[in-house]
Amino acid sequence: MTPHSLLDAILRGAPPVRRRAMAKAITLLESTRADHRVQADALLTALLPYTGRALRLGISGVPGVGKSTFIEALGLHLIGQGLKVAVLAIDPSSSVTGGSILGDKTRMEQLSMQEAAYIRPSPSGGTLGGVAEKTREAMLVCEAAGYDVVIVETVGVGQSETAVHGMTDMFCVLQLPNAGDDLQAIKKGVMELADLVVINKADIDPNAATRAQAQITSSLRLLGFHGNPERDPHDGELWNPKVLQISALQHQGVDGFWAAVCDYRRLQTANGRLSLRRERQALAWMWERIDFGLKQAFRAHPQVRALLPQLQADVAQGRIAASTAARQLLAAQAGGAPAVAHATETAAPQPAL
Amino acid sequence: MTPHSLLDAILRGAPPVRRRAMAKAITLLESTRADHRVQADALLTALLPYTGRALRLGISGVPGVGKSTFIEALGLHLIGQGLKVAVLAIDPSSSVTGGSILGDKTRMEQLSMQEAAYIRPSPSGGTLGGVAEKTREAMLVCEAAGYDVVIVETVGVGQSETAVHGMTDMFCVLQLPNAGDDLQAIKKGVMELADLVVINKADIDPNAATRAQAQITSSLRLLGFHGNPERDPHDGELWNPKVLQISALQHQGVDGFWAAVCDYRRLQTANGRLSLRRERQALAWMWERIDFGLKQAFRAHPQVRALLPQLQADVAQGRIAASTAARQLLAAQAGGAPAVAHATETAAPQPAL
Repeated sequence: MTPHSLLDAILRGAPPVRRRAMAKAITLLESTRADHRVQADALLTALLPYTGRALRLGISGVPGVGKSTFIEALGLHLIGQGLKVAVLAIDPSSSVTGGSILGDKTRMEQLSMQEAAYIRPSPSGGTLGGVAEKTREAMLVCEAAGYDVVIVETVGVGQSETAVHGMTDMFCVLQLPNAGDDLQAIKKGVMELADLVVINKADIDPNAATRAQAQITSSLRLLGFHGNPERDPHDGELWNPKVLQISALQHQGVDGFWAAVCDYRRLQTANGRLSLRRERQALAWMWERIDFGLKQAFRAHPQVRALLPQLQADVAQGRIAASTAARQLLAAQAGGAPAVAHATETAAPQPAL
Repeated sequence: MTPHSLLDAILRGAPPVRRRAMAKAITLLESTRADHRVQADALLTALLPYTGRALRLGISGVPGVGKSTFIEALGLHLIGQGLKVAVLAIDPSSSVTGGSILGDKTRMEQLSMQEAAYIRPSPSGGTLGGVAEKTREAMLVCEAAGYDVVIVETVGVGQSETAVHGMTDMFCVLQLPNAGDDLQAIKKGVMELADLVVINKADIDPNAATRAQAQITSSLRLLGFHGNPERDPHDGELWNPKVLQISALQHQGVDGFWAAVCDYRRLQTANGRLSLRRERQALAWMWERIDFGLKQAFRAHPQVRALLPQLQADVAQGRIAASTAARQLLAAQAGGAPAVAHATETAAPQPAL
């Protein structure tokens, strides 16, 4: 299949043809072969005018919080409303463990049987940046194929929440009702990203869930997650993170969740924040990939490779200032400077001083 | 003064000679002239073995919270205990406004008159990274000159808190007692960095201060700022951020603050976290400067300069995928690829498809 016929099948194919074309396109985008990469870039550019209409929804939460059950309940609810739903994932651990989330579709058995659902496991291997790039590109394929909601799931590993936040319109954090408990184990900095906090399994202990809802709401407010001081007075009304209770297993509260998502989308469209967020995300993504490429070339440079291990050890041990080491390494790559003797030879105080 | 005599004066000069040498050394380190930079790097490397014994303390808080009053009270308290105190600052706005913090020493009138105190305003101009680098290097000069405590002050502008957190052993956030109030205006993400939260001006409304202390303590716990799930079970006891009340103006609670700092230092030394933090900071600093240098060279490349404005606009407007643009720009710098026509010419769907 050529990229042109692939594009045609994604845009206009009958459901089974379209699904096969999507899978092929995503596989092409995930390929690291140089000739594939050229085709993949041509495909991406051709797809792009058909993207951007979907709602991009990030879902995060620690293992055991019930992410799959929630996504399945939400997906079925949306399909019931006539929407098409794609589910992607970012799981940087999948290269090591073979995938801890979405590795098998049986976890979302009912949803995966729906014609209006498309579920793709996390790309595996490589850096988080690489995995995130493949997921971003897969998202564009889903959008061009007419999916109305693209859900990107992640589990709290490394910086994966930041990556998902950086590619979605709305970032939701799932919590358990025992919020006051140390077992909660939410990662520092994740709540900062939340546009919506969902207390799942609220039916197990309704009192605890209500307490957690009140506590999290006031904590978000107290720690500056509401009322951003950098807000421009000319902005329209801004969104303040909300905290909801649901029970995905009982299918309770999923409609309320979706109503909050729709409120958010309406507000962010009206105040211009949705397009601003996407524009910033696209530029940040470009610079993230440029940074990665520059650093990769830097590390591969023969002079840098020769100097880096010793200089890195010297910096870690405090034998040379970090800024001095950085200047030496940059000069080595540029080839403009003579090879520099490493720091330990000059770091010792000179008795003559 | 040669770098060698400068080093000697910093290490062994009588107080007035030492102070003049410190000022000269910091000015040399701040210079952008290439020949000065070579001398500055030689000086830094020679200073380094005499650094690292000071406690590095970051202080942040919004304007009006009383940072200067607090730092002055703390500085005088420490000098009363026979310690030498240096106060540096990072104020990225200073290049625009001429300096909003520490621009004039009269703000810390009593402290600045002490022989055991050294106060230096924020370096001005350039990027935050550049300003932070100069402050880091000035910190090393202060340490070599025998200062026991180096305080780095910042005001909540841009990413300056992250920069100060990245160069200090302990990061403290000052708050007002009206914590529940939206006027608090603390920036999203700053509390995440705090090792110690200080409620200043507690004497104005003791009840509000006590309420704020309880609320902030439980919020920090609830939002995952305590009990890091990534902690290694083999770690010793870990520090949990504390919340204290003081009144700097009344000199109340400054001794309690210092006791908490000493507790922190003892614990972080015992569990190995202090040296680990410094090692990570030094390596992160090195890579931050390398990244900056690589990106500067990238932006200055003629082929990149020719393509960047249009590609950046195409990415922002969604006419080309960010990853495709990044690959085109990297190829342009590497010189390996032909000049690429910009995206708009190929983005429109081909009717033949």
